[in-house]
Amino acid sequence: MPHVVVIGGGFAGLTLCQRLAKRPVWVTLVDRSNHHLFQPLLYQVAMAGLSPADIAIPIRAVLRRQTNTRVVMAEAVGVEFKTRRLVLHDGEQLAYDYLVVAAGASTNFFGHESSWGAHALGMKSLEDAIEMRRRVLLAFEAAEREPDPEVRRKLLTFVVIGGGPTGVEVAGALAELARFVLADDFRSIHPSDARIVLIEAGPRLLAGGFSEKLSRLAQAQLVELGVEVWLGAPVRDISEGCVHFDADQLEASTILWTAGVHGRRLARLLGAELDRAGRIVVNQDCSLPGHPEVFAIGDIASLTPQGQDQPLPGLAPVAMQQGRYVARAILARMRGETPRPFHYVDKGIMATIGRSRAVAQSGRLELSGFVAWLMWLVVHIWYLITFRNRLLVLFGWFYNYALYRRGARLITGERSWRSLSTLADEAAGRVGVHGEPLPPNTD
Amino acid sequence: MPHVVVIGGGFAGLTLCQRLAKRPVWVTLVDRSNHHLFQPLLYQVAMAGLSPADIAIPIRAVLRRQTNTRVVMAEAVGVEFKTRRLVLHDGEQLAYDYLVVAAGASTNFFGHESSWGAHALGMKSLEDAIEMRRRVLLAFEAAEREPDPEVRRKLLTFVVIGGGPTGVEVAGALAELARFVLADDFRSIHPSDARIVLIEAGPRLLAGGFSEKLSRLAQAQLVELGVEVWLGAPVRDISEGCVHFDADQLEASTILWTAGVHGRRLARLLGAELDRAGRIVVNQDCSLPGHPEVFAIGDIASLTPQGQDQPLPGLAPVAMQQGRYVARAILARMRGETPRPFHYVDKGIMATIGRSRAVAQSGRLELSGFVAWLMWLVVHIWYLITFRNRLLVLFGWFYNYALYRRGARLITGERSWRSLSTLADEAAGRVGVHGEPLPPNTD
Repeated sequence: MPHVVVIGGGFAGLTLCQRLAKRPVWVTLVDRSNHHLFQPLLYQVAMAGLSPADIAIPIRAVLRRQTNTRVVMAEAVGVEFKTRRLVLHDGEQLAYDYLVVAAGASTNFFGHESSWGAHALGMKSLEDAIEMRRRVLLAFEAAEREPDPEVRRKLLTFVVIGGGPTGVEVAGALAELARFVLADDFRSIHPSDARIVLIEAGPRLLAGGFSEKLSRLAQAQLVELGVEVWLGAPVRDISEGCVHFDADQLEASTILWTAGVHGRRLARLLGAELDRAGRIVVNQDCSLPGHPEVFAIGDIASLTPQGQDQPLPGLAPVAMQQGRYVARAILARMRGETPRPFHYVDKGIMATIGRSRAVAQSGRLELSGFVAWLMWLVVHIWYLITFRNRLLVLFGWFYNYALYRRGARLITGERSWRSLSTLADEAAGRVGVHGEPLPPNTD
Repeated sequence: MPHVVVIGGGFAGLTLCQRLAKRPVWVTLVDRSNHHLFQPLLYQVAMAGLSPADIAIPIRAVLRRQTNTRVVMAEAVGVEFKTRRLVLHDGEQLAYDYLVVAAGASTNFFGHESSWGAHALGMKSLEDAIEMRRRVLLAFEAAEREPDPEVRRKLLTFVVIGGGPTGVEVAGALAELARFVLADDFRSIHPSDARIVLIEAGPRLLAGGFSEKLSRLAQAQLVELGVEVWLGAPVRDISEGCVHFDADQLEASTILWTAGVHGRRLARLLGAELDRAGRIVVNQDCSLPGHPEVFAIGDIASLTPQGQDQPLPGLAPVAMQQGRYVARAILARMRGETPRPFHYVDKGIMATIGRSRAVAQSGRLELSGFVAWLMWLVVHIWYLITFRNRLLVLFGWFYNYALYRRGARLITGERSWRSLSTLADEAAGRVGVHGEPLPPNTD
């Protein structure tokens, strides 16, 4: 039986694998982590609204009954097209008949990975989100203990860079965290004094896919929550605790980056043509030019439908539809047929702003406010249920969600209390003077 | 109003703080982490049965309405008794009228912290438990990819050192994880082939507090689950992937240590008398000899009741009763009264073995098997509800718990796939040859 090797257990890769169950193929799914992520709710983990386990599920658990499928936890580091082999990080090679690259996207600092990336936090993996949560919560903790009002203001300033759906959702959730969830938790500071600034280089929020009217409505809803929205403000540089613009600068201890993604490193290693965002340019059937047995789908792929001038956006529905399509395409190829081009059925897009506001667009239908939020909720609950099949957990989640109880706001990581003083020192421009008052590592 | 400074938000410290609500005192609670932990279920997080957020709650959330109380996230590093000041890690000093030390216990490798501690994992904090979960799950992942049967066997050997309640609970949960939860998840290995060995230096399990009959019954229930129990096997040394006994040795990739705890470092810094386990020896009213305004309670304290020869055990009920007692004692002192000695009301002890077996002892009542497990469940659900006040989350949890669905089994941490090959290399005694096939840090 042919061997289908799939890289990546995200929406694209996992959907594909599930569609190949009970078909006459062997499937091997390679992923760097052991879990599939419900990426659309990742910002909720970053803003302490949900726990990691609420939005992640072990890939093995999803595929446990699928006997023709094997899961390998490893990093793919290269492909030998001639011998049809995928090379893993430990040197192991997997021979394939069909290869599907669905490795996803990673945070794009537009060439400033080493400099900006050191001062701003991206949000693509569960680890990213946990680190973001840690940093946001630690900023409040450090501010609570800081006597200098200048420093305290800097600790309580949060900058979200990027006015796309993720930026809008992060800024909205952060505003609610500060204004409602943490409201009574502190004594020296008022978390609601936190300043949350959403930065967008272009002239409006949600420029990709939403109408101008919805952009305005989204902005109004964010402002209502207390978010400052800066439009037409391209970031020139990011240094420690400071975002630099053409003429201006903004001091903030916490800088969150949602401004861009590009295809993962693996895309560059394949030697295929890449688009500006580092994504693999694919044919209309999702295959690599010159390699009909190799497909790229999901966020790592750049597919521009015939007659259009823009590649498809990096959305979960695109990824899932491509996963289903390539499963069919592979089975068609095995029968000697030529698959018809991939056709994306656009059911619409939405972005949530806090917990009772949203914007949604589906064709000519435009919704905003509470109705849009209800629609967002129904869609996400629907997907989460099929995703986790755990009605009761969902009720529990919804209960907490509705009541602003955020048990999820845990700071984990070794010696967090130490990072806390580092944070305050950085905000104050002090050189850390705490040293190591105790021998490390015995407690 | 007098200022009561409390170090540690565990069962002892948090109970004390809650009892001082609406009393004529100011309270400051100092803790290194931002959460209170339901420690009796920590082993469930380590064995992927529960998520961290299921058993942890932000201390600020518990005390948010208690207006006389402030929470400070910091590490206490010393006390100046003369000036009545607590020194924090960043140099800040808190002046107190009453000081309550409730900093808890940490893993005790009996003088081998740096050597044994490098090869065996302890379990006292949430971070410890998450790391344990990571290591256990990674061992299965590494075994799945390992071609050499010898190495695979070592990867699938798990040693639990210490036959007290924690060791018994860890070994039981690990056996169920391997035999039921992961059963269908892998293709090359059978997780149920995992070898789980519980090591106890003494002649029986659960020697502290349980009757000999219950020790035998606990052992029988563990054996039923497939756990090997080695009694009278004192550990002489622990090296990388190997536990050494007098004549014998046992190779295992994963070595879990539950054999002992001692008072946290802070106990040694106070200059007070310590018992053999490094705990602060206190008077009958939980105060430090010579310092009636300083108390030590919970796991960091060693209180031997009048007429007895053993100090009270490190259990949640002891800690909570001491917390309530010292709150009363402080209020009594403020009125110029002398508090009566602390009296521990022993309601019994229990240990669970997997999810339908347990042993419980309360006075002369001895229970074992399913009845004991039901009792364990009722007691823990009862406490968890008062603890989190989240009935619905609990239902969700119980649903997952009963159905062996373990969404909690996430491997988090940067580049886990890399530790995976390190693990296999260590098990094989190979020097890592994978090097760095790709420049790090860009994905």
